[in-house]
Amino acid sequence: MSLIVMKFGGSSVGTTERMARVAQRIVDKKLQGHRVVVVVSAMGDTTDDLIDKARELNDNPPSREMDMLLTTGEQISVALLSMAIHKIGHEAKSFTGWQAGIVTEEVHSKAKINDISPARIHTALDQGCIVIVAGFQGMSENGEITTLGRGGSDTTAVALAAAVGADVCEIYTDVDGIYSTDPRVVKCARKLDVISYDEMLELAHLGAAVLHPRAVEYAKLYKVNLVVRSSFTQNEGTLVREEAEMEQGIVVRGIAFDKNVARISVLGVEDTPGVLARMFGALAAAGIDVDIIVQSGVMHGKADFSFTVSLADRARALDVIAGINTEVPYREATFEENLVKVSIVGAGMVSNPGVAAKMFEAISKAGVSIKMVSTSEIKVSCVIAAEPVQEVVRALHTAYGLDTAETAFVGGPQERR
Amino acid sequence: MSLIVMKFGGSSVGTTERMARVAQRIVDKKLQGHRVVVVVSAMGDTTDDLIDKARELNDNPPSREMDMLLTTGEQISVALLSMAIHKIGHEAKSFTGWQAGIVTEEVHSKAKINDISPARIHTALDQGCIVIVAGFQGMSENGEITTLGRGGSDTTAVALAAAVGADVCEIYTDVDGIYSTDPRVVKCARKLDVISYDEMLELAHLGAAVLHPRAVEYAKLYKVNLVVRSSFTQNEGTLVREEAEMEQGIVVRGIAFDKNVARISVLGVEDTPGVLARMFGALAAAGIDVDIIVQSGVMHGKADFSFTVSLADRARALDVIAGINTEVPYREATFEENLVKVSIVGAGMVSNPGVAAKMFEAISKAGVSIKMVSTSEIKVSCVIAAEPVQEVVRALHTAYGLDTAETAFVGGPQERR
Repeated sequence: MSLIVMKFGGSSVGTTERMARVAQRIVDKKLQGHRVVVVVSAMGDTTDDLIDKARELNDNPPSREMDMLLTTGEQISVALLSMAIHKIGHEAKSFTGWQAGIVTEEVHSKAKINDISPARIHTALDQGCIVIVAGFQGMSENGEITTLGRGGSDTTAVALAAAVGADVCEIYTDVDGIYSTDPRVVKCARKLDVISYDEMLELAHLGAAVLHPRAVEYAKLYKVNLVVRSSFTQNEGTLVREEAEMEQGIVVRGIAFDKNVARISVLGVEDTPGVLARMFGALAAAGIDVDIIVQSGVMHGKADFSFTVSLADRARALDVIAGINTEVPYREATFEENLVKVSIVGAGMVSNPGVAAKMFEAISKAGVSIKMVSTSEIKVSCVIAAEPVQEVVRALHTAYGLDTAETAFVGGPQERR
Repeated sequence: MSLIVMKFGGSSVGTTERMARVAQRIVDKKLQGHRVVVVVSAMGDTTDDLIDKARELNDNPPSREMDMLLTTGEQISVALLSMAIHKIGHEAKSFTGWQAGIVTEEVHSKAKINDISPARIHTALDQGCIVIVAGFQGMSENGEITTLGRGGSDTTAVALAAAVGADVCEIYTDVDGIYSTDPRVVKCARKLDVISYDEMLELAHLGAAVLHPRAVEYAKLYKVNLVVRSSFTQNEGTLVREEAEMEQGIVVRGIAFDKNVARISVLGVEDTPGVLARMFGALAAAGIDVDIIVQSGVMHGKADFSFTVSLADRARALDVIAGINTEVPYREATFEENLVKVSIVGAGMVSNPGVAAKMFEAISKAGVSIKMVSTSEIKVSCVIAAEPVQEVVRALHTAYGLDTAETAFVGGPQERR
């Protein structure tokens, strides 16, 4: 008998009909002989409706009161889901975040989980109940209601799985797993049976919005086996697990791309010590996330820098750069938009020379010039013009052999749990 | 500087516009120099919407989960109201029932309050905050979320007023006070400046739905000064307080009537000891509230009984009576509907002979026959045919001098607080 955490997102429980289907799915899992803890998000548009009401009253509401407001969305979901399970004839108990023992720091709208005391969950499981916990929320030590911010319900599920010692944490969503690239762009994109935490992190950060990076980090830290699968089908999904247990030989696992990219270039910077630290220190102080940084060689004591930020941060980043011109003398700052960052991700590439070269070749064959390059142990990213990104992704997908039938693993995810 | 509890019902905060008006009203109270604790119900139709959702999933949902569901309604209200107050530039803090320290028995859907630990409320007041507490809800000692059932938010307000030692508990509603009778029936019905707890209890039980009897009982027990007033006007409202502090001389304070009455008659009952106890014991065991009970004299060892129940309980009451026919032999059981119970209420009638006689005279002058009579120290009730009840109420209103300008009290409610 396994202990399984099942997490359902807002679209999976968007209507009472869907809620009833989810209830049946949970009961089926119980009937297979498992102990089940469920984490659920707010129903479909509930959170947006609550935010709309708040904005009607206050365009800048205090975050403490927003947490008080928004946590009701998940509380409604857990109560209704429990009722739906009772309707099928099984015992269930719903819990708010604080009832489930989820203790967070006292930071509203983006609290981190400090501790989970799952005594009440274990008691309810011992009574034979299906346990249903409100995602996204917790309580500070002073009894203040908090929310976990973006990716909160995924994080609740993974943290609970770690706290109760679950065998697996299943994340149910509206896609049936992690794909080798976006199936809307590359028709022959393949669903992956398995992927490592690190690969998933790269893919999650790079715009595969299925699983929040924070939840993946948590899973990696506590070695929680994660499965991403569909709420709507019985397909197997993708297992996210430790790399060491995975077969070698897959060089590139997937291809991600991100259009939310602006490049800023600072030209003719006087090359004195500490220049970089001052420039990027100022950007960090302004809360601007910088992704790729490239410095060209120094000529005549002057250097050129380029870096990328999200489109939303572009104007503010230029302001910051303008503001430090006296401190960091430079000739001019320019920016470029309509770009895309294409990345190949794979834990196997560390030991495979020529992986990056193959990427550059595929991009150049598509007649596209590369504006920036960044590499990590399991990733190569290139910034290129936004058009024709589809052709480039398709070419890379083919170049790394991802179009073919899936490389054989020993068994599917089911046997690996 | 007074400490004031203000309670707003669901229709007072039914829309965000109304919510904003309520926020201004609360801030005005604060600006008068008072410390303010607010109790608020769920917005307008929220509770009904939640119940509808629950019924879609389970026609007989567990009460624990209904409590989990319905308490979100008040939590949404307190958060939004706090935001609206912040918008006007004042500090406010919202609290759920459990955060406010409201400890109840662990009975779902109709819990009684066991204790209130208002430490967090006092801390927030000391910080200069307006405190906003979710009505209708609490927490058991085991951390289960409970609701207080009917009249719950009124009860929360009165119990909090007692716990924090408030100078007055103001119940804001959609009428501007307690009237001498229903103003929709008698045009010259007068708003009362003051009424005793006992009189209010009689009127509340008799269908003046402004204030829940349970809250009045709580107020009487803890000697909480209650004011019933309008959310929509600045009118003074009605003060509910201890009788001893009130002027004597008002014989009849108000006239109530209740159309939710069925009369059941059990005829030819064998007059053996314990007959009444067995009959009404059986009704009580079936959860049927019996109001007026009348027994005629015994003739030839047989007695006739009549009693009233609510219309909804009529059929079940007849079933119970039929079921005990072997145990309590009787000739026949009949029932009558289309009745109304008219009551005159007034603490002063104890020491005034002839009050009941005047009532019977007024009713008979209207050409109406009296079917049942019941009296208490501060009330006389007559059951009569439902038509013409308006003429009867008007006649009584005139007969007891309630049509005239209000009897002068020493000062209005304002000075009495």
